[in-house]
Amino acid sequence: MTKYFDDFSAGEVIELGSVEVTEREIIEFAREFDPQSFHVDPTAAKDSPFGGLIASGWHTCAMYMRLMVDGMLADSSSQGSPGMEELRWLAPVRPGDMLAARYTVLEVKRSATKPHRGTVTFRSEMLNQDGEVVLRMMGRGLYGTRDAADVPNPVETS
Amino acid sequence: MTKYFDDFSAGEVIELGSVEVTEREIIEFAREFDPQSFHVDPTAAKDSPFGGLIASGWHTCAMYMRLMVDGMLADSSSQGSPGMEELRWLAPVRPGDMLAARYTVLEVKRSATKPHRGTVTFRSEMLNQDGEVVLRMMGRGLYGTRDAADVPNPVETS
Repeated sequence: MTKYFDDFSAGEVIELGSVEVTEREIIEFAREFDPQSFHVDPTAAKDSPFGGLIASGWHTCAMYMRLMVDGMLADSSSQGSPGMEELRWLAPVRPGDMLAARYTVLEVKRSATKPHRGTVTFRSEMLNQDGEVVLRMMGRGLYGTRDAADVPNPVETS
Repeated sequence: MTKYFDDFSAGEVIELGSVEVTEREIIEFAREFDPQSFHVDPTAAKDSPFGGLIASGWHTCAMYMRLMVDGMLADSSSQGSPGMEELRWLAPVRPGDMLAARYTVLEVKRSATKPHRGTVTFRSEMLNQDGEVVLRMMGRGLYGTRDAADVPNPVETS
């Protein structure tokens, strides 16, 4: 495990890699979780305000999360997230788009009551191949500290 | 189509039905989108701060969305959502949980510049079988107005 709470610093930008969006995956995700016509039916989507098939916003969040895990979290002391302060779907995501994810550290704060962990406040973005931001989130993540790494399960979550 | 912008009123509460969470689905979703050990590996999850397997927060959002589509959106003039002001994962979601979704209308506002649509500000919640709120979101949804229903594709989204 290489990334602990101690390793984050305000202003740090972490590039998380990219993913290509396919029509098949847009439809698969939406059939299970968001079966609105403009997410599952390319023909009906042409007559929608979006002018064609677009990904469910939750699918875009999920694709972001996968890049975040592969690009950083899997090799970190992450202990989850209490949530987001803001989530914006800023532009439609369409089949063939190539989305790149970026994580910017806004603030780091060690817990006063649970000294073995700290909170990282971040801005997350997904940009398409034209450099357009399609998803923007601001939120907080909890990370274990380096000095807690040798203590098994040191954090009380209750 | 039965639910237009005009049909929403502040204070209205819409019950959206419920869904049972299975271990198989938690692991399937997380393997694809959020492969952190406490989402995909029941054994490793026991030693995590969560004490057992929990659903990815994005999976909980996606399950909410499915209930929202089936319980309301599919039969509405929905034109998508610009995003959320707040998203909170308030309690872990575990295999066997039964989650019920609820949509509360906070405010309705017809667009000044695009009179054929309006914005509904809402609070969304998922509650488990113990009545505990596991997910809370505040956001905005766009809906076409009833008088636009006869006009094909009346909304410019650019």
